[in-house]
Amino acid sequence: METIPSFRFFLLLLFGLIILFLVLYPLENFELLDCSVYKPWCISKNRIQAKSNLFSQTPRTKSIDHLTESPHHPLDPLTFQEINLVRAILSSYPPFASSSPSPSIHYVALDEPDKSIVLRWKKGDPLPPRKATVVALLNGQSHILTVCLESNQVAGHVTNPASGYPSLTVDDMAGVLNVTLANREVGRIITARGVDLSNVACIPLSTGWYGASEDGRRVLKVQCFSSHGTANFYMRPIEGLTVTVDVDAREIIHISNTGQGIPIPQAAGTDYRYQAQKKKPLHQQLNPISMEQPRGPSFSVEDGHIIKWANWEFHLKADQRAGVIVSRAMVWDSDRERLRSVMYKGFSSELFVPYMDPSDGWYFKTYMDAGEYGMGFTAMPLVPLNDCPRQSHYMDGVFVGPDGNPYVQSNMVCVFERYSGDIAWRHSESPITGMEIRESRPKVTLVVRMAASVGNYDYIIDWEFQTDGLIRIKVALSGMLMVKATAYQNLNQVAEQEYIAGTLVSENLIGVVHDHYVTFYLDMDIDGPDNSFVKMNLVKEETTPGESPRKSYLKVKRHVSKTEKDAQIKLKLYDPSEFHVVNPSRPSRVGNPVGYKIVPGGTAASLLDLDDPPQKRSAFTNNQIWVTPYNRSEQWASGLLAYQSKGDDTLAVWSARNRPIEDRDIVVWYTLGFHHIPCQEDFPIMPTVSSSFDLKPVNFFERNPILQAQPRFPKDLPVCRAADSA
Amino acid sequence: METIPSFRFFLLLLFGLIILFLVLYPLENFELLDCSVYKPWCISKNRIQAKSNLFSQTPRTKSIDHLTESPHHPLDPLTFQEINLVRAILSSYPPFASSSPSPSIHYVALDEPDKSIVLRWKKGDPLPPRKATVVALLNGQSHILTVCLESNQVAGHVTNPASGYPSLTVDDMAGVLNVTLANREVGRIITARGVDLSNVACIPLSTGWYGASEDGRRVLKVQCFSSHGTANFYMRPIEGLTVTVDVDAREIIHISNTGQGIPIPQAAGTDYRYQAQKKKPLHQQLNPISMEQPRGPSFSVEDGHIIKWANWEFHLKADQRAGVIVSRAMVWDSDRERLRSVMYKGFSSELFVPYMDPSDGWYFKTYMDAGEYGMGFTAMPLVPLNDCPRQSHYMDGVFVGPDGNPYVQSNMVCVFERYSGDIAWRHSESPITGMEIRESRPKVTLVVRMAASVGNYDYIIDWEFQTDGLIRIKVALSGMLMVKATAYQNLNQVAEQEYIAGTLVSENLIGVVHDHYVTFYLDMDIDGPDNSFVKMNLVKEETTPGESPRKSYLKVKRHVSKTEKDAQIKLKLYDPSEFHVVNPSRPSRVGNPVGYKIVPGGTAASLLDLDDPPQKRSAFTNNQIWVTPYNRSEQWASGLLAYQSKGDDTLAVWSARNRPIEDRDIVVWYTLGFHHIPCQEDFPIMPTVSSSFDLKPVNFFERNPILQAQPRFPKDLPVCRAADSA
Repeated sequence: METIPSFRFFLLLLFGLIILFLVLYPLENFELLDCSVYKPWCISKNRIQAKSNLFSQTPRTKSIDHLTESPHHPLDPLTFQEINLVRAILSSYPPFASSSPSPSIHYVALDEPDKSIVLRWKKGDPLPPRKATVVALLNGQSHILTVCLESNQVAGHVTNPASGYPSLTVDDMAGVLNVTLANREVGRIITARGVDLSNVACIPLSTGWYGASEDGRRVLKVQCFSSHGTANFYMRPIEGLTVTVDVDAREIIHISNTGQGIPIPQAAGTDYRYQAQKKKPLHQQLNPISMEQPRGPSFSVEDGHIIKWANWEFHLKADQRAGVIVSRAMVWDSDRERLRSVMYKGFSSELFVPYMDPSDGWYFKTYMDAGEYGMGFTAMPLVPLNDCPRQSHYMDGVFVGPDGNPYVQSNMVCVFERYSGDIAWRHSESPITGMEIRESRPKVTLVVRMAASVGNYDYIIDWEFQTDGLIRIKVALSGMLMVKATAYQNLNQVAEQEYIAGTLVSENLIGVVHDHYVTFYLDMDIDGPDNSFVKMNLVKEETTPGESPRKSYLKVKRHVSKTEKDAQIKLKLYDPSEFHVVNPSRPSRVGNPVGYKIVPGGTAASLLDLDDPPQKRSAFTNNQIWVTPYNRSEQWASGLLAYQSKGDDTLAVWSARNRPIEDRDIVVWYTLGFHHIPCQEDFPIMPTVSSSFDLKPVNFFERNPILQAQPRFPKDLPVCRAADSA
Repeated sequence: METIPSFRFFLLLLFGLIILFLVLYPLENFELLDCSVYKPWCISKNRIQAKSNLFSQTPRTKSIDHLTESPHHPLDPLTFQEINLVRAILSSYPPFASSSPSPSIHYVALDEPDKSIVLRWKKGDPLPPRKATVVALLNGQSHILTVCLESNQVAGHVTNPASGYPSLTVDDMAGVLNVTLANREVGRIITARGVDLSNVACIPLSTGWYGASEDGRRVLKVQCFSSHGTANFYMRPIEGLTVTVDVDAREIIHISNTGQGIPIPQAAGTDYRYQAQKKKPLHQQLNPISMEQPRGPSFSVEDGHIIKWANWEFHLKADQRAGVIVSRAMVWDSDRERLRSVMYKGFSSELFVPYMDPSDGWYFKTYMDAGEYGMGFTAMPLVPLNDCPRQSHYMDGVFVGPDGNPYVQSNMVCVFERYSGDIAWRHSESPITGMEIRESRPKVTLVVRMAASVGNYDYIIDWEFQTDGLIRIKVALSGMLMVKATAYQNLNQVAEQEYIAGTLVSENLIGVVHDHYVTFYLDMDIDGPDNSFVKMNLVKEETTPGESPRKSYLKVKRHVSKTEKDAQIKLKLYDPSEFHVVNPSRPSRVGNPVGYKIVPGGTAASLLDLDDPPQKRSAFTNNQIWVTPYNRSEQWASGLLAYQSKGDDTLAVWSARNRPIEDRDIVVWYTLGFHHIPCQEDFPIMPTVSSSFDLKPVNFFERNPILQAQPRFPKDLPVCRAADSA
């Protein structure tokens, strides 16, 4: 059943891509495949060919009939039928019904019921009224609509609530590429650079916003590459050619061509595909190793979206903008004998990826990938056994195309149980105590994973749940560097005083220095919505003369944040704190407020000028931690309309209101940061680099919640043989 | 064969423990076992009983006959026979032969040959002359001897090279406990606190050094606990009783008794042993999960100490002080088609664990566990399937007892291959490019692990090798908190202004705030010994008016450290750098110097006064990174003689010489730090907390070295069934 909706989606692409296809000729080394199998990817004359079927293996997931599925939980995402209903309602909604051209639909998702309604709801209850949020563009105006699926009505309609535009659609991107590739001047420039037009691949780049002159229209910048001899065209930029296009008018605003004399970097050694490797590694033929679970994994998936594993239970869904949303995370407390709330909702709210080159073709590269493109939109199907281990459960996204039709992003999320050989807790006694104690417990966790491929870069986002109550949120980066072509072949050709904005990673190729920031929305509800944010500041205390042989020690000073500004946290290595979210009205048995702490990791900080346009738009990275009062409308750190936004609707703006946050429903925002000075090892594809932060129980449980965990015994081990052995 | 040497070792303990055993009566819940099986742990009347044999399983290791083994590599540790020879040579060495009492031997290890000799040596060559370093105490003097095993002579002898004493021996510890427990006044105090003398367990605590009054004799402080009703006596302190003992004179210097009125915290809920758990967790009965390798792991162990796996090769040995030493780490470069040097030697050189309570019974708790006790000495046998996964290879330590006899620390190190479901690299193409590329490679790594149980705390130290050239060094903490008894049962009894030095983790029990620092010695030899240390500083650069629509960007400023002071690094979040160790005379193909970078993690910094005695002794934690010129005698960051040292022989003192370090053989020191504010989840045993840092290739390889890595195919999966299924 899934091929049908996928096919619908790709039909959308077809018109836009037809002209592109005319110039995007077959890449060398690609295999010719039977088009009847790869319908969406094949067009006439086999001009576009997909890779072979090497990795295909049916995932464990029970195939879901997306055409007929219905929601079971108040937070379940909109179904196929519901998205179709939204489209039908919009098609008879006056301003949209009569418009020409028809509106383009940029985002449709469940308008979640009020938290109080969700918290009251129990399995078996009727679902609260289903509503959809729609973000659409019509005649250059951004429309935010609330569509009620019970009354079949548009129940709310706001136009241009802030600066900026919705995220790009495939039509936007394909349209802009078509305009560029159909342009004679562009063709002339490309040809003059020695690239055959049959070997050109172009990509649509969001432009950021750099002043009033860019207002009033949606703009994309197109840069092109030679795909001759490699699937990895990213490594073959036609440097200096930047085509600025009006997205809606489909016309070229400006062609910048500054790359004369810069050669196209070589194709040799750039292709990363397995089939393209000639040299096989001598020293890396490892014996197979696999996480095996002969009785199957221990988690269950109820009604498609409720994950239950060990002491955890949570709701999981895919979202076109956020990627993955984890809701209603609750953990079983065996002392209190009940499921307890930890987090109402968590997701990656926005990314910020500024490149550190102020020159013409590079200054604007300051991406906000979630708001400009969409983390779910760019999350391709995960590769079984390679992206996720055996026994993974796969979940699809049901998203919406620019015409309002639903489509399926298949196998977008995987869920798996992990045992990596780590230890959950241990203790041995030494002989001196006379007790031969050797107690150790293996650590087993549950991982939820997605991987977004935003153009060249791949972001792997993991939510890992531990039985001791800890949640680890990890971002791993892979994919391709964004590179800049240069005339230099060797660093010894670069004058001492010249700065090349990065590292020469191969001949004629500079990996440009850049940062990555990923900002997470974490609506913590520790035993209920009303929580406080507490800094546990470690302060050096001097002893008084005669008090102690010690001169100094660290003392914990506890500070409850009263208002938002008090919780704008810049991490300080030499003035350290722990950051607790506590429920002040729920003391533990011995009187500590129950809580979770945010344990920072990957703490690069953005150092750009606060007044620099990209930093203003991404001002959510000004601090590593923020705390805001819960507000339904404040979920996207870059603002609802991030594309070409000016920074008037960011987390920093909301937080500046300095609202009270003590003993209230609060949301914590945490930003993981990476500085990336590229190196040759990142060429032609980057080994993963990862960082993570933790949400960790702190006096939430009365004691170590895994004290009773079972050790592993020999009887627990499976009996295995190699698949190809007798 | 192993029981013989082990037995010899434990005979040493026997005399010292006899009196201790008279008061350390059977702990409740312990099983009675047949003494013929558990000889070392059983004495007459079954007073000391070991736990049941639940976890015993023969590890994969080929049993090594330690009595007859001989060295194969210049860096192989001293064998049983060699240690015996050292003892024989010392017994006829004049100052030692005639002494009464006989000298006590605190450390014996291979005196490694000069680096140039080791680097020249090839398999098949005769071994360079074998020498031993001996650290001994005789009549209160510290002796450092070099013993030549070929000439059967003492080739070097230094007395008291710096302040301080060697690490403690079991005799030191047992002797001090005996003196304490035999003391009537101590007995009276304990009885007065309501603890039956038959239920007392005491531990010997290193004292640090707090001024001239403590000079001239070795001192230990003894604190005691009630072991009634629990194997976890650490949770039942007899608060306020601290007995200061002269180690050599075996006499009590001072009895401090300030804990009147403080009850002994309860035993209920403190026992962590599996057999002691009555309540079984409802929600944690997970199906078995195991890393399976039906064709076995891919690594080999040659001559007992050379580990070969994938593209890695290194020498591995156990050491009584350091724990694990990794030497001659080399990685295969498939471009250059040769093994290339990365690190000549790496190990955990010292720990620093200051507790943050200046009061009488606590101020001195500022442990340097490696130098005061020994990380290898305290590393007990790893528990198969729980500490290390199936298919692990186990390695023993061959160490020396206080009389100079060798003994075996069995299964002290494990080596295993890991697949945790992570991704080595990946990329997907989005539909917009017309290529359905889905390439992903699973990450498989090799882990070397040991776990030291230094009294209450357990330190798990992992060296993880990745095929992309990265080495991750991880420290995980578990075991028991060091706790302080209090009269308070609930936080609501504590006055607002009172500070209790930590967290009330259970009734009458405070988890005292403390830090952990683990300082690693990393003798990086990138393609040879002569390397430089380079700071790649990211600096904000403002654009000039009209230069760019951007106002700012980050620029990399490269700075080569000339001397040691220039490489004393305090990490700065808002003034970030990368830290490269490069070989300046080995440019890559495109001209970058080949190198590795130190990627910091777990970066808590010590904030104590630089003049505070514990901080002076542990001044190696004043910076997170130091670089020193290679010097055979500078390996122990706290100095060769750490016990009661004054800080005159630390890394900080060596570095203050400010020697040249450019283009030389250099050693990098990195300190992993943790601040620990305890919480109730840490009671009665702590879930592991870990931090790590990485050594990562940076322009070391010409390209991604795992470009050719194989994806995983369905045929690679084993066929498994549960052990107890039909």
